[in-house]
Amino acid sequence: MSISALQNARYTYKPKLPDCLSGSIEDITVESGAPTESISDFEQLRSIFKTTYGKPLITFVKGKGSNIKHELKVGVILSGGQAPGGHNVIAGLFDGLKKANPNSVLYGFNGGPSGLINNKTVILTQEIIDEYRNTGGFDMIGSGRTKIETAEQFASSLQTAKKLGLNAVVIIGGDDSNTNAALLAEYFLANGSTTQVIGCPKTIDGDLKNDYIETSFGFDTACKTYSELIGNLCRDANSSKKYWHFIKLMGRAASHIALECAFQTQPNICLISEEVEAKRMSLEKIVDQICASIVKRSENGDDFGIVLIPEGLVEFIPEIKKLIDELNDVIAEEEKSFATITNLIDQMYWLSSRIPESSYRVMQTLPPDIAKQFLMDRDPHGNVQVSRIETEKLLVGMVEKRLAAMKEKQLYSGKFTYQTHFFGYEGRCAFPTNFDADYCYSLGFSAFVLIASGLTGYISSVRNLIAPASEWLAGGVPLTMMMNLEHRHGSTKPVIKKALVDLNGNPYKTFVKNRETWAEKTCFLFPGAIQYYGPAEVCDQPTITLKLEYEK
Amino acid sequence: MSISALQNARYTYKPKLPDCLSGSIEDITVESGAPTESISDFEQLRSIFKTTYGKPLITFVKGKGSNIKHELKVGVILSGGQAPGGHNVIAGLFDGLKKANPNSVLYGFNGGPSGLINNKTVILTQEIIDEYRNTGGFDMIGSGRTKIETAEQFASSLQTAKKLGLNAVVIIGGDDSNTNAALLAEYFLANGSTTQVIGCPKTIDGDLKNDYIETSFGFDTACKTYSELIGNLCRDANSSKKYWHFIKLMGRAASHIALECAFQTQPNICLISEEVEAKRMSLEKIVDQICASIVKRSENGDDFGIVLIPEGLVEFIPEIKKLIDELNDVIAEEEKSFATITNLIDQMYWLSSRIPESSYRVMQTLPPDIAKQFLMDRDPHGNVQVSRIETEKLLVGMVEKRLAAMKEKQLYSGKFTYQTHFFGYEGRCAFPTNFDADYCYSLGFSAFVLIASGLTGYISSVRNLIAPASEWLAGGVPLTMMMNLEHRHGSTKPVIKKALVDLNGNPYKTFVKNRETWAEKTCFLFPGAIQYYGPAEVCDQPTITLKLEYEK
Repeated sequence: MSISALQNARYTYKPKLPDCLSGSIEDITVESGAPTESISDFEQLRSIFKTTYGKPLITFVKGKGSNIKHELKVGVILSGGQAPGGHNVIAGLFDGLKKANPNSVLYGFNGGPSGLINNKTVILTQEIIDEYRNTGGFDMIGSGRTKIETAEQFASSLQTAKKLGLNAVVIIGGDDSNTNAALLAEYFLANGSTTQVIGCPKTIDGDLKNDYIETSFGFDTACKTYSELIGNLCRDANSSKKYWHFIKLMGRAASHIALECAFQTQPNICLISEEVEAKRMSLEKIVDQICASIVKRSENGDDFGIVLIPEGLVEFIPEIKKLIDELNDVIAEEEKSFATITNLIDQMYWLSSRIPESSYRVMQTLPPDIAKQFLMDRDPHGNVQVSRIETEKLLVGMVEKRLAAMKEKQLYSGKFTYQTHFFGYEGRCAFPTNFDADYCYSLGFSAFVLIASGLTGYISSVRNLIAPASEWLAGGVPLTMMMNLEHRHGSTKPVIKKALVDLNGNPYKTFVKNRETWAEKTCFLFPGAIQYYGPAEVCDQPTITLKLEYEK
Repeated sequence: MSISALQNARYTYKPKLPDCLSGSIEDITVESGAPTESISDFEQLRSIFKTTYGKPLITFVKGKGSNIKHELKVGVILSGGQAPGGHNVIAGLFDGLKKANPNSVLYGFNGGPSGLINNKTVILTQEIIDEYRNTGGFDMIGSGRTKIETAEQFASSLQTAKKLGLNAVVIIGGDDSNTNAALLAEYFLANGSTTQVIGCPKTIDGDLKNDYIETSFGFDTACKTYSELIGNLCRDANSSKKYWHFIKLMGRAASHIALECAFQTQPNICLISEEVEAKRMSLEKIVDQICASIVKRSENGDDFGIVLIPEGLVEFIPEIKKLIDELNDVIAEEEKSFATITNLIDQMYWLSSRIPESSYRVMQTLPPDIAKQFLMDRDPHGNVQVSRIETEKLLVGMVEKRLAAMKEKQLYSGKFTYQTHFFGYEGRCAFPTNFDADYCYSLGFSAFVLIASGLTGYISSVRNLIAPASEWLAGGVPLTMMMNLEHRHGSTKPVIKKALVDLNGNPYKTFVKNRETWAEKTCFLFPGAIQYYGPAEVCDQPTITLKLEYEK
């Protein structure tokens, strides 16, 4: 057997397009709005993006049509971490190109942006595209994390574009990759190249969104995959009436994934990093919150529950953030001295005279295995690898200690047993949901129309996503419109602003309204595995986050 | 929202019954075979099961029908770990009872066998049953791990049966619970009670099977849930071209789950505990095997892969098994002395004069974090808690060390990065696949017919499972027919023989035929999430293990 039954069946799925893109190519009309501005730092951004700044918003409508049937050569890049639906973006782009002109050619750059820099390509044929329709993963052409940053890298990219005679490059990526797309668009134009650059909003983390990008692709599928597993654990805990499951969820800094999974499964606790930071909640305070639920539920006879923890949490806890910064500094300063010490007791002694007492005390409260994670495995820049800190075990350790203390004071008499989990890689390459399959295909098709219309420095945009696909709106948003200046890694750079969970937004507020009930009662939902066939209410729903953000 | 869209949709699913059970109740005819024997220890088992030994095999056929329409009172128990489909067994039993006689009553015993001992019941109404049709979990009545062992427990169980006026008790459980069912059937009859006892074969581990029980329920759903996740990781690794994923899979001693997941996903390595034991493979030998694949793939440019590890592996590695036995002994002997020592270095010193040098050397080769797991967290009997040993991290640690040594000798020049996972609880409470939903419902209905036919000491049996459900065969197998005597926990007991992976069986042989190719090439399959709707080849397939075992 070389492919699975589901993969074979998914080949026959025809992704839905918005009405404005689904008719004849001649009927697609491109409408331009008024010039736009960036979200802040107007003057500086205008001077960085001299030729591409401030372009108008673009909307596609059904109409008399522009001429977008010329022959094109386009290259496409998958950039950064995998997200379900990437292959469908490429399929949508391919189908658009070929529908308009069968002589058009689509190149895939192998292994991410380095494929553009080093001119590593494959011509994407009908056969290759068909092999990957509606599948997960980025394995059609691979992905990579190289950034186009140096003058040489920009020059090589330009050379590749010239060599291949490219009309356009499409970069499918997250906020960083789309920032890169904006810089590349500007560089090409400023250096006399006609190669256009178009971005597409990808990331399971859900942090690439704004007024014009309602969601990034892959978020829907990843959240639903994690929610399947969380729901299964909810049912397991509720059946055996034992185990508190502490579940860390991928998602980098933002807590969008945790929040969406909370809506899908109604766990007892879901921590939101953005709230922890805003309220300056200490680790003790977080442990308070979890223990309050454990104690209350235990009094009700329910010694089990579910805790969701966003991956980035530790960096949002003020005293831990401070500790991490200080550790990064002192260890970088005396790297060699520190490297000679290998056991925790000696490392703690070494630190005692080097970090402030308050931080030293924080270190002391950490379970030893976790304390070690703060001191080991530094990244190439000498920093703590925050993603490798087992926050779920940190919290379990502290909760256990607290409950033991409460038991001594007869404030708690339950039985606390636990399991820890980390769900991340499991959700990045699932078969895209019907939503992601349709959304991605539409994004790819829309990218084609932007290219055929001669536009550059845009991100493909498909909106009105809570409506049926036929009613979706498609067009392009100037990348500079989503940018501001930020200080990152020691210098000020133009970047696309990352969207964290909005504490004034409807999703967060809805969560707050419910969470006290969830903390005490058993309100678990069991969403089950993603369904690709069957009733529409099971197969074709967008995320609850999207509904809460956009439903009137 | 109080239930998920999928749960709501699954309520409308009508589980399929075999033809022999699906017509009118009057048409079900009960056929008896010749008397049977146990698999060994005939005389001893005959004397233990004086009144229930050696009953005939029972088959249901469509025919003129026996009178099975009388009013019945039945109690049902969910015993042990959760397995998808338990609710459907109860639904099938309920529907059978009510179809035959609307006045019949079904009691649920709460929280497992202790519900029978302590007479904790709920009357299962149509409303309750309907709330749980085709759902995962055991939350309808809960489960528990109490065994009916002492004279008092047997007497209390009998008292409950009398008090409720039960015609029968149905015990849904694994090999231990069904052994218990056999003993209870014998006890009831020997003590003048007419309460019959019927078992049903449950366990995700797949180790309750024999010539008459083709598979236990839940195995299908659990394997497919794990395979979804493994397939997603396969695709992720193949997309980013990095990470070796070391995945431990639940399943206790037997490697059935790992083997089925290997068929579903075609990983680079799948370890089979039964083979490790048979070939007396050392830990070093296992590490050899994994490293051979890593090195070969690295030479092909593929620094990524998937390794599946059955949960019970460590106990099948001869020197580790020996080590565990010796640790259990010496620590039990000097429990208090050992308890005062808390760090690994001192513990090792303590052990050095107490365990044989060969075992001491094995301890020394273990990564320190894993060595600690062998010494901590002993179970109530003072034994190492094998299920808590992180075998996936043990293997990663040893592989890393070996590769470093090979690198020094220039035998390996790749880049080894890894992730570890444990999939277990995630699969025990998934919505049952169509297969498990149908199989369980049929098992429950068949249990009703056995009861209505006045039989006791039987396990409900549904066979010919690779055929469409309409062609399934239903009946009952005398529990004593599946038994032998085994020495467990210090005494010789009658038990149902656990089915480990048969090294002469077709599934294992098929695996062996393929594994060399899988170890070197990338042959991953991506089965995706369990589908309940859509094409039959996606939704209605039994496990590959079943097909390999029974396909002609």
